[in-house]
Amino acid sequence: MNRAMIRNILGSVLEIEAVLLLIPVITALCYRESVGWYYLGTAALCFLVGFLFRIRKAKDNVFYLKEGCVITGLSWILMSLFGCLPLWLSTEIPRFENALFETVSGFTTTGASIVPAVEELSHTALMWRSLTHWIGGMGVLVFLLAIMPSSGSSHMNIMRAESPGPSVGKLVPKVRQTAKILYIIYFAMTVLEIILLLLGGMTLFESVNTGLATAGTGGFGVKNDSLLSFSPYIQWVVAVFMILFGVNFNLYYLLLFGQVKKALKCEEVRAYLVYLTGATVIIFLNIAKTFGSTADALRHSVFAVSSLASSTGFATVNFDAWPATARTVLVTCMFIGACAGSTGGGIKVSRICIAVKTVIKELNSYLHPKSVRKVRFEDKPVEHEVVRAVNVYLITFFVLFATSVLLISFEGKDMVTNFTAVIATFNNIGPGLEMVGPTQNYAHFGVLSKIVLMFDMLAGRLELFPILLLFHPGIIRDFFRKSPVKNQ
Amino acid sequence: MNRAMIRNILGSVLEIEAVLLLIPVITALCYRESVGWYYLGTAALCFLVGFLFRIRKAKDNVFYLKEGCVITGLSWILMSLFGCLPLWLSTEIPRFENALFETVSGFTTTGASIVPAVEELSHTALMWRSLTHWIGGMGVLVFLLAIMPSSGSSHMNIMRAESPGPSVGKLVPKVRQTAKILYIIYFAMTVLEIILLLLGGMTLFESVNTGLATAGTGGFGVKNDSLLSFSPYIQWVVAVFMILFGVNFNLYYLLLFGQVKKALKCEEVRAYLVYLTGATVIIFLNIAKTFGSTADALRHSVFAVSSLASSTGFATVNFDAWPATARTVLVTCMFIGACAGSTGGGIKVSRICIAVKTVIKELNSYLHPKSVRKVRFEDKPVEHEVVRAVNVYLITFFVLFATSVLLISFEGKDMVTNFTAVIATFNNIGPGLEMVGPTQNYAHFGVLSKIVLMFDMLAGRLELFPILLLFHPGIIRDFFRKSPVKNQ
Repeated sequence: MNRAMIRNILGSVLEIEAVLLLIPVITALCYRESVGWYYLGTAALCFLVGFLFRIRKAKDNVFYLKEGCVITGLSWILMSLFGCLPLWLSTEIPRFENALFETVSGFTTTGASIVPAVEELSHTALMWRSLTHWIGGMGVLVFLLAIMPSSGSSHMNIMRAESPGPSVGKLVPKVRQTAKILYIIYFAMTVLEIILLLLGGMTLFESVNTGLATAGTGGFGVKNDSLLSFSPYIQWVVAVFMILFGVNFNLYYLLLFGQVKKALKCEEVRAYLVYLTGATVIIFLNIAKTFGSTADALRHSVFAVSSLASSTGFATVNFDAWPATARTVLVTCMFIGACAGSTGGGIKVSRICIAVKTVIKELNSYLHPKSVRKVRFEDKPVEHEVVRAVNVYLITFFVLFATSVLLISFEGKDMVTNFTAVIATFNNIGPGLEMVGPTQNYAHFGVLSKIVLMFDMLAGRLELFPILLLFHPGIIRDFFRKSPVKNQ
Repeated sequence: MNRAMIRNILGSVLEIEAVLLLIPVITALCYRESVGWYYLGTAALCFLVGFLFRIRKAKDNVFYLKEGCVITGLSWILMSLFGCLPLWLSTEIPRFENALFETVSGFTTTGASIVPAVEELSHTALMWRSLTHWIGGMGVLVFLLAIMPSSGSSHMNIMRAESPGPSVGKLVPKVRQTAKILYIIYFAMTVLEIILLLLGGMTLFESVNTGLATAGTGGFGVKNDSLLSFSPYIQWVVAVFMILFGVNFNLYYLLLFGQVKKALKCEEVRAYLVYLTGATVIIFLNIAKTFGSTADALRHSVFAVSSLASSTGFATVNFDAWPATARTVLVTCMFIGACAGSTGGGIKVSRICIAVKTVIKELNSYLHPKSVRKVRFEDKPVEHEVVRAVNVYLITFFVLFATSVLLISFEGKDMVTNFTAVIATFNNIGPGLEMVGPTQNYAHFGVLSKIVLMFDMLAGRLELFPILLLFHPGIIRDFFRKSPVKNQ
């Protein structure tokens, strides 16, 4: 394995983290908070380690998918380990495992918190939490690709490992250009949301935090009651942007370059909107009676669906208290998630579409056993390799899901809590039901369970394999082997 | 579609049912119960309809997999419709949908009951319920194949549609011989269990009923408290036989013909025993404290695991009151189920093995991208087609599962009830947790939910596609088309 290359890229990632850590430092300056020193110190540490990692340059710039996966997996773990230091050292989160949980939850855009009262945190810490969402949403390695001098096709292997979805679409032939365009769209949309929130009377600090957390479909809030106490206008803006950030970014690229007709044809986005509408209608009918006005019921239905389907996890109401049908629909949304190529999590709409079409094709094969027609998606036949990848993904998903629920259950908590805690972390949503409902937090879990849930968050964000591979004996052996061998 | 052939076979199925209905008639004679008349009447009706179905013989005996599936799907529905008549007409179960639910639950070897107090039922009705389990366990069409004059390879298409497992193994080259051997082993093991139960002091009636229900891995009991009030010896005998009936029948065939070495190598059976042992150990450690003696705790752990893993559903204790870990392990057992080629339900151990190996292969492919090694199972490379079938099965399973839970949730019951009611019917187990726990029953569900659960029972028993195909527009069109077209 090309260890030197891996070390170099991890060094760059840490240097980027050092720069990012300066943003909470600026926040600390604005609010005259002394915790800022911890962020400055961590930034210096990140920079130093990053610098050391990059001293000896790799001789060979070429690497393969396995290196891409290992880089991605290690980057995210390293970022989280360094990123949790200021929270822990400043004793704002006194226990290390909790600080790490909060940071992993931030970077993976989960938004599952162990902080019982977020309003007691410093502005600096809140800003750092929101920022981890933003950088985690599009991916730090995608960011790295956008700024790094391009060096051939190898980088596609990183893009492939970090980007969500069954098949990675390059918007333009060059990886670097694709990464740049993605970040420009992402940045512009975030700024637009922040402006709209400011117009609704939020403070600048609240707007920026909410904007960053929505963009990454994260869900860390700056208030204990999430978005409950904000005006309906604010709630509508956030709801709409949660839906928008759950859309495949290809669509925005197409819209940006005037290909409106092609954009409107996007099958995944249409399926996404249909399923959101369906879920909202069912929930609205189920809860309408419990609210005073139809407008309220509609807003809360739209908000809850877009929050959980986009894997953000903001709340305007305690949906855990809703009737069984609404709760079941919400859990279904948590499983399906958003579009591939968005910042949202979940199994992804495109995978569900391909899976359902595979089932229909299977039924058709009984009628026409000799037919060789392929499953079609987005107006193209789906390659056999993609169908296989979707199948393997889903099976791995359910195996890991069941194992996690089993491990969590050793604590003796009720089944709905265990089940929804795993799906809420695995699909990077945040709140679940019962003891991890929107008015609760994850502090009550033991260390073992927290490790399982952190693993789930990372595995979910990186779409399973980059994290799983780190535990593969063959990969570990390959990594520590002295003489690098060529790819077999 | 070869409609004449379908009609002929359905006729034969009804004639077999007519003969089977004579067994409860004999029970009625023994116990001088007047309800026997309803069974005799239904037998006559079955015979008459069966006879009418068989008057016009099919010109062409050849049929394909689609016909095999349609025959299987329709047979099971028809058998249930006729089989529920005596229960309904005798007003022992006054509502039609309940009588149908009980009969579908019987034939599919689910054992989910709507009868609040089974001890109030007549001996005749109890015998009929147990008998539906026995015939449903191995399959009425397999029985038909065993007694029907053989007519070429077409019959394999019925065997394939009715038998559980990812790939149907013929024990011997001839389908008819295979079916015969299966039924002989099945019958012999049932008789052995009945004798052992008699030796333990059960009455003949109790032994026969319990034996039939265990053999089919059904779970209808003759007492309100299932097997709680019987002696530890009886409970151990039933536990062992539940495990044995969950084993792939190929193993018994091999043992019968002296191929002990080959039998011991059977990977699926070894995986089955390992997973049962693992589940038992975890549950034992979890519940040991709550029981007075270690022997009791061990017996209840073994019994609960073998009951739910083999999809029988007998109970010696209210396992719904156990702690979260034990309950979660039991739910996991409910998902996995028994071996392919057994009378047990569930996803099946072989499918789980193949799925897990597919995931491992995927991880290896990152290390050796060009490797073309196939997944191996039972010491043979697994054909691509089998891997694909397993994948499609699992995806269809989860799609139907989620849809069913959603439909059931409209009643507003708690999530654990909905979730376990669906898995308990889908995998033909019987009891679930909470409102469908071992001390509860299914009577409280509404008609819509009962229809969904009946669909699940049939789809689960016939491994999804034979039932799903009945709703396929293409198959329906093909069925009602005047001029039969050749298979494309």
